[in-house]
Amino acid sequence: MSNSYVLVINSGSSSLKFAVIDPESGDAVVSGLGECFGLPEANISWKYQGEKTKEEIPAGGDHHQYAFERIVKLLDSIGLSEQFVAVGHRVVAGGEAFKGTVRVDEEVVAEIERLAELAPLHNKANAAGIRAAMEVFPSLPQFAIFDTAFHQTMPAKAYMYAVPHEVYDEYKVRRYGAHGTSHYFVSREAAKVLDKPATECNIITVHLGNGASITAVKNGESVDTSMGLTPLAGLAMGTRCGDLDPSVIEFLMRKGWDQEKVFTTLNKKSGLLGISGTTSDMRGILEACEAGDEAAQLAFDVFTYRVAKYIGSYLVSIGDLDAIVFTGGIGENSLPVRHAVLEYLKVFGFVEDQKGNEDARFGASGQIAASEMLGAIALVIPTNEELVIAQDCVNLL
Amino acid sequence: MSNSYVLVINSGSSSLKFAVIDPESGDAVVSGLGECFGLPEANISWKYQGEKTKEEIPAGGDHHQYAFERIVKLLDSIGLSEQFVAVGHRVVAGGEAFKGTVRVDEEVVAEIERLAELAPLHNKANAAGIRAAMEVFPSLPQFAIFDTAFHQTMPAKAYMYAVPHEVYDEYKVRRYGAHGTSHYFVSREAAKVLDKPATECNIITVHLGNGASITAVKNGESVDTSMGLTPLAGLAMGTRCGDLDPSVIEFLMRKGWDQEKVFTTLNKKSGLLGISGTTSDMRGILEACEAGDEAAQLAFDVFTYRVAKYIGSYLVSIGDLDAIVFTGGIGENSLPVRHAVLEYLKVFGFVEDQKGNEDARFGASGQIAASEMLGAIALVIPTNEELVIAQDCVNLL
Repeated sequence: MSNSYVLVINSGSSSLKFAVIDPESGDAVVSGLGECFGLPEANISWKYQGEKTKEEIPAGGDHHQYAFERIVKLLDSIGLSEQFVAVGHRVVAGGEAFKGTVRVDEEVVAEIERLAELAPLHNKANAAGIRAAMEVFPSLPQFAIFDTAFHQTMPAKAYMYAVPHEVYDEYKVRRYGAHGTSHYFVSREAAKVLDKPATECNIITVHLGNGASITAVKNGESVDTSMGLTPLAGLAMGTRCGDLDPSVIEFLMRKGWDQEKVFTTLNKKSGLLGISGTTSDMRGILEACEAGDEAAQLAFDVFTYRVAKYIGSYLVSIGDLDAIVFTGGIGENSLPVRHAVLEYLKVFGFVEDQKGNEDARFGASGQIAASEMLGAIALVIPTNEELVIAQDCVNLL
Repeated sequence: MSNSYVLVINSGSSSLKFAVIDPESGDAVVSGLGECFGLPEANISWKYQGEKTKEEIPAGGDHHQYAFERIVKLLDSIGLSEQFVAVGHRVVAGGEAFKGTVRVDEEVVAEIERLAELAPLHNKANAAGIRAAMEVFPSLPQFAIFDTAFHQTMPAKAYMYAVPHEVYDEYKVRRYGAHGTSHYFVSREAAKVLDKPATECNIITVHLGNGASITAVKNGESVDTSMGLTPLAGLAMGTRCGDLDPSVIEFLMRKGWDQEKVFTTLNKKSGLLGISGTTSDMRGILEACEAGDEAAQLAFDVFTYRVAKYIGSYLVSIGDLDAIVFTGGIGENSLPVRHAVLEYLKVFGFVEDQKGNEDARFGASGQIAASEMLGAIALVIPTNEELVIAQDCVNLL
């Protein structure tokens, strides 16, 4: 048994995801989730040796702190505590300060807190998680892995908005992107399938989950991505609007909407939920489509059409395509979404491999289409952000 | 000499463009421009039989009214007054109410004024121009030609934003697009070059001027376009930001910018002007690039990169390409812009015809590239919105 596990932490505003990862095999020895923090239904659950356990979290106190202490007890009880070498923390916004994974010290945590203006909810929770982990694992090295880091290779023509230069100079307003760890991971896995060095591969990675983004990966580097200053931009998502004429905001404010109502709507009540009026979950959208629900059908159509349009535009960004990779909850599992996108991609010569598309589900990788015209394939590859985080920690030790 | 001319009017907030058009030949018998209305330097100028005349407009009074009366006097003096059959007015926003050109009555003008919430500056000036023209040409039929009408064929997946459905139901917030008359005209001209009925042609029309937009024209109909609810969205323009993470607005407001500062900046101080810091004019940008100005180079790069990305995405929208058409002041004249875009389009098999690209300037049409891969060509076609307006008037009479 390996004794160099990494504890991977993803601390959200009202949740805490954790996993004990073997950085060699990528296996999760234990994985768990604390959720509904601050609410009466707060709970923590985990999976170990195929068995699931769930416990309530008592009301009152700091639930993040409680969860960390429960994790320590759990790891003690199954004899894993002595086998850690590091704790790896997922952090959403790294701004321009963090171009890669770093070992955490007080200065780093302070900078992560300062960068909260780029991802207000996320970064504060990430920093709080790091502080709590430093307290319960004082002797372990802690690392911060940034969602934005992979995109720091974008050229200025892709990351600069067409606004006055001072807005960038003064506030660092620019495209940062997100989901970088996932885009990085699946682009590397795709390179293995292509049997070429990652640095020679041109790939469009399509991460479709509740949050969704697409990245143009040229010679192994991110050269453009659909999320922007924040994770609100780009594709239509579960509840986020994605791309929008900025004037819509002015229009709604003229109608009497205040700033908070506008941006809460665009972040929490838009996307699939907004168009369908019923659900932010693609499975629910598909069921409603089956039942002939027109609003759900429109949500599906807007979602898939935008994905395909981004792929078309990123062909320009990379200039030469080896592979398109679908990943994320929807990308890995939703046959109808991939089918609809591949239909649009016929213009680029893609022909769907129906059997391949049907087989690539529930964690299975596979080729789902190919284009002779472009000399390219389309793949499904399950993402594994925890593994990247664990490996980054070990590599930096 | 034909005696069924049309007077074409484009009434802006502080300007008035006019032309006397022969709807058979498309020739402008007279064309002119009143500008700087309301300012001391207000003036009106016109071209007739190759000769240019310019006059000051005296301070005080309604300059739109003054201009119309001057135009009547001018047309009287050159014996054209009796040869009109109609006045055609360009109107920016037609909303969902106007799917084509209509004859103007009081109800129509009132509706155009009501639609000013979609294009505040433009529609009010358009309506004021119509009212003034009705007064000075009481016996002539007047028509309104809408910039948005051509785009009314877009499917819902292209025009609906991923926001709550009520925002559309209640406020009609959706994509309307603009420059419709220009996109329509050059797609029809391209069909002639392709020697196919327009309804069988799939064309991407690229209108690049101070305002800039791209349209996907499938079987002769607009199926997607880059401008949105208003002309702010899409490409980077002279002073407009085009596409932007909506969160940038929230970010700037958190920094203390008020609503007016934000949207004035995005409309009037962004785009080429914002990035370069010096000029909104592409010719100025190109000169600065030659001189090694990095900010100007970035403005050029952002501009051309976005154009190419939109073309890539609209290949998805039309599914099969016959032609790309460049038009508008920049599209018709800027060799470096077209060259840069064509470089990006190599991924779709486009090969530039350098001689063709050099020759297509100063009003000359021509083929500038071809793609064997897609079986498509790229063309330059000078736009002629006035001709479309004149012909629409005559057809409706």
